[in-house]
This record gives sequence, structure tokens and C-alpha cells, in this order.
Amino acid sequence: MKIIVDGMGGDNSPEAAVKGSVDAVKELGLNIIIVGRKEIIERELSKYEVPNGTIDIINAKEVISNDEEPVLAIRRKKDSSMVIGLKALVEGIGDGFVSAGSTGALLTGGLFIVKRIMGIERAALATVYPTTKGISFLLDVGANVDCKPEYLKQFAIMGSVYSEKVLGVKEPKIGLANIGAEKGKGNILVKEAYDLMEDLDINFIGNVEVRDVPNGIADVIVCDGFVGNVILKLTEGMAKALFSSLKEEFTKSLQSKFGALMLKSQLKSFKGRLDYREYGGAPLLGLKQPVVKAHGSSDAFAIKNAIRQVKNFIEMDVINIIEKDINVIEKN
Amino acid sequence: MKIIVDGMGGDNSPEAAVKGSVDAVKELGLNIIIVGRKEIIERELSKYEVPNGTIDIINAKEVISNDEEPVLAIRRKKDSSMVIGLKALVEGIGDGFVSAGSTGALLTGGLFIVKRIMGIERAALATVYPTTKGISFLLDVGANVDCKPEYLKQFAIMGSVYSEKVLGVKEPKIGLANIGAEKGKGNILVKEAYDLMEDLDINFIGNVEVRDVPNGIADVIVCDGFVGNVILKLTEGMAKALFSSLKEEFTKSLQSKFGALMLKSQLKSFKGRLDYREYGGAPLLGLKQPVVKAHGSSDAFAIKNAIRQVKNFIEMDVINIIEKDINVIEKN
Repeated sequence: MKIIVDGMGGDNSPEAAVKGSVDAVKELGLNIIIVGRKEIIERELSKYEVPNGTIDIINAKEVISNDEEPVLAIRRKKDSSMVIGLKALVEGIGDGFVSAGSTGALLTGGLFIVKRIMGIERAALATVYPTTKGISFLLDVGANVDCKPEYLKQFAIMGSVYSEKVLGVKEPKIGLANIGAEKGKGNILVKEAYDLMEDLDINFIGNVEVRDVPNGIADVIVCDGFVGNVILKLTEGMAKALFSSLKEEFTKSLQSKFGALMLKSQLKSFKGRLDYREYGGAPLLGLKQPVVKAHGSSDAFAIKNAIRQVKNFIEMDVINIIEKDINVIEKN
Repeated sequence: MKIIVDGMGGDNSPEAAVKGSVDAVKELGLNIIIVGRKEIIERELSKYEVPNGTIDIINAKEVISNDEEPVLAIRRKKDSSMVIGLKALVEGIGDGFVSAGSTGALLTGGLFIVKRIMGIERAALATVYPTTKGISFLLDVGANVDCKPEYLKQFAIMGSVYSEKVLGVKEPKIGLANIGAEKGKGNILVKEAYDLMEDLDINFIGNVEVRDVPNGIADVIVCDGFVGNVILKLTEGMAKALFSSLKEEFTKSLQSKFGALMLKSQLKSFKGRLDYREYGGAPLLGLKQPVVKAHGSSDAFAIKNAIRQVKNFIEMDVINIIEKDINVIEKN
């Protein structure tokens, strides 16, 4: 198996991308192609010992930055690490693609270059979401901010397949994110999506109140990209705000400082539960080939976990299963 | 000033409603009319000493429960404490209305009985939102799950008036909840709402990322009722989940238990920051008279604070200002 890694995307690249690739080769037993400025990637690679022939480099002179307009960037920067990497994926030079670069550009590139699976109306950006019970899988988290009910139906199918095959959940419970649990609650979009999802051959548990999402009420949470992004970002913001409030409280007196010191390892372990780095990247579901977005601030550890995720994505044949499921269901 | 209180609404009534009314009379120097089953309210009232003539009772034989369909309940239960209370408000028997009963029924009753201010397209349910800096004011949080851009524009105007007049914020910063900070981000609804809000004579600061809402990035956060409810409920759910995780971590060892014990008062103070009871209720904005929804699980303290809020709502002449502002702006 060969995985293509965007050597230039993200805040900490090329260092993180190269080190993450080296670690992945050693731990996961696969080959990697790093796309980026050849001399920079080579210089970075020379810091590590790598088994011969496990890491190749494809030269790419340009880089797409986060502040570029995605469609323009993909169209114009033909020599960027992202465009060259995605083209290499389509040409069969590698089996999957990982990038910590611009989410918008990766989505656009995915749609324009890799293209959607036949029958899929919209590709979704999905992510693993840490809960008190473990993890849930949330989609869409930002690729489609204006959705039709049919898109949500397809997100449910794709989420179910991914959760079962890649995350290893047996008969994953699929919930529709809503502001009430009973059928008939919510806005027009979710009401109509509910009816469509009820007819699917998945383990649909109905509406889930967003209040219960952090408790792991469902294995897969389906929503439109605006609401999904709100859930994701508010979760990040709340965790950060609660930590800073907690810190403020804990430094109020000598006694509380001492108390907090005694709890240091527990506070660290608690923070670790919310660490995106553990969970790898966010898969783009609905494309013809595996593409995973790593967090923009990924370090080598996060890149390695994103590579692990694309490996499972490939091994479990997720794309063929999605294609089959979508088209069986669409034909009925 | 006379405030009408629904004596039967909420999980802890009539006890909480009556005790909260008694405390409000003593602390806030106003008169109260409690609506509910006369003999029950009288029995409850007899537990307290109240200055003569400060609390009246209006008899209401029925109660609307949370699981009733709002429109049917308001139409059919003419003898309910909520319907009789709202009618007393319209008849001028009191100056404002507080209920901890069903949100849906109160909204419906507000629209059918109290009615909207001329020029207001939709009434909004608004709420105070605790942040690391203090409080923000969030609307709509569930009254309108399908919105047009014009509604959001009016929410911005009403939120600005309420924040300034009742919450005492000078030139409140009004933000549009979005998934990105730059203009042009988001779904069709928020993009169009942005353009309308830009033209208003308010302190519009543009899009605010939902990630920054817990940090108090704006004084007023405008969103549709679906997204607002998601923000509110996820905030509650996250706080609860983080506390239970924290508790789990803190009881792992003897040392951590001892550490947590030393932090007891800080943990309590931290929890207090998130306590809805401190902030009173959720005003229904856009109605012709002041109506405030108290939290369903309100105790006497929360009811008293909701009464305080409706008092400010009345004293600051919010409704006339909203009517003037809306119609001045609409005419331009």
C-alpha cells in the first residue's frame, strides 16, 4: 500500500508531514509518497533513518495557503503539492491521500480532481468526535452548508459504512442531530431527512438532541455542514473556555494551587480525552478515492494517525461498499 | 408595578412560583398576581408573611403540561394558568408575565393572545448566555427554526435594544453566529442576513465564529432558532459532560480525591458561573407586552430573578423602543 502525503500543508509542515510519514512507515508497514518542494523534503527526510524504498518524493513547486480562495487556488496552482498529490492519487500512483492543508481547497480539489462516487449527490467532511463514552462520528462538518434532505440521507449511509468498517462499531447507531428527540421536531430540512432516513437499511435511532451528543448518544451523528461545524467549533470553544475558567479558579489561593498540583496528572488525562491528535483526520466521504484531511495544526503524531486512518479506509474497501449501498438503495 | 406569575408552570411549582413571588415582593418592591388553582396557591402562600395587598391570586383551574401540543393546548385550555395569565396581561391587569411552563405553549400563547408588535415579522426567544467574560445575549434560541434573512435582521435590532436597556451594555456589539469570521462565509441565510445587518444603525461587528461565543466575543449573538437552540443545548451538554469526566478523573486515586477536596469551593464557584438560575429567564422579544420564560426546573431563586428581569423589561420601556426602532428602520 502506498499513501500520498501533502508535504507542505498545515501549520507545522514540512517538518510534521515528514516526521509523521517516517513514523507511519516504521509503525504501520506501508509506503509513502511525500509531495512537496523536493530539496526541502529531502533535507527534512535526511534527519531520519528510513528503510530503503519506503518513502518517495514527488516534486511540487507551489503551496496552497489557507487564505486563498479554494476554487481559484485549485484551478491556478497546478504545481501545488495538493493538486499534484490528488492527481497522483487519480493516476493510481498511490492508494490514498492525506493533507493538513486548506480544508476548502482539499474539498474543492477532491470534487474537481478525484470526483464523486456515481450516485453520490454531495461529498461530506466527517470527523471523529470525542465523547464521555468514547467516540462518535459526525458528518457533515462543513463541506455543505446548504443541504437538501437527500444529502443527509446519503450522509447517514456513508457514516454508517465508515463507522462500521473503519471505526469498528458493530451495527452503528445513526442519529439525526436535532433540537428535540421526538419525530416531527426541528426545521423543514431535518423533518424531511427524518422520513428518508427511516426507510434506510441502517440502524437509525431517530432524532438525537444536541445536548446528548457529548455523552455519546449515537455512533454516527448526521447534520448539515453548517450545524455540524457549529457543533464541532462550539465543542472546541467550550472545552477551551472551561479550561481557562478552571485554571482561573484553581490559582485563586495557595490551597487551591496545591490542590490543582495534586490533580495535575488527572487534569492532563482529562485534557487528553479531548485531543483531536489521537483520532487522526477527517475523511472526505463520497469521493472515488480515499482522502483524509488532517488538522491544520497537526504535529507528526497527528499526521501519523491520519495516515493510519487512510490505511484503514483503504483496507476496509469503504468506497466500494458506499458505492454499492448508495446505488442499491437508490434503485429501490 | 404588577407582575403576573404563572403559579403552576415548571417542575417545582406551585412551591417555587409562590416562594419566588414572595421573595420578589420583599426584595424588589413590586406587586404580584399569581395565577393558578386558588386553594393550592393560598395554602402555599400561607407559609410566608407577606405585606398586605402585595400578592393577589387569580383562579385558574387547568394547567398546561410540557408534553401537550402547544397550539391545541392554548386553544383548548381556556382555564389554564398560562392562558388566563396572558389574558390578564392583555387586559392590563398586570404589566408583565412570567412562566416556567411549556416553552412552546408560552410562545404560542404569546403570539395568539399578546400578539406581535406592529412591523415585527417573528417573535424571538432570547436568553442570557454565560461566557468567560460575563454574559452574552443569544437570540433566537428556538422560536423560529426556519428563518428568513429579514427575521435575523429584526432579531439584531431587538437584541441590541434589550442588551442596552435591560442588561445595561453600552453600545452592545452585535455578532452574527457563523462558521467563519470573514464576510461571505456561511450558508445562504447568514450571507443574506449579513448584508441586511450591515445597513442597520446598530453596532454590528460582523460574523462571529461559534468557537468564540463562550469567550464573550459579542454582547448579542444573532442566529436562527435551530442554530441558537443547538448552541444553547450543546453548551449545557458540554458543561455536564466535562463535569462528569472531571469527577471521574478526580476520584481515580486517594491523592486526586484529596486534591479535589481542596478545590471544592473553586469547583463550586466554577459551576456557579454556568448557573442559569442567576440570570433569570428568557424574554420573548417582539410581543406587544413583556413576557419572560423561566427555566422549566426553576427554583424560587430562579423565579425571583426572572421576575427581576421582567421588571427591568417594563421599566426600561423596551417594547416601545423596539417598536419605534423597527418602524423607523423599516420605513427607510
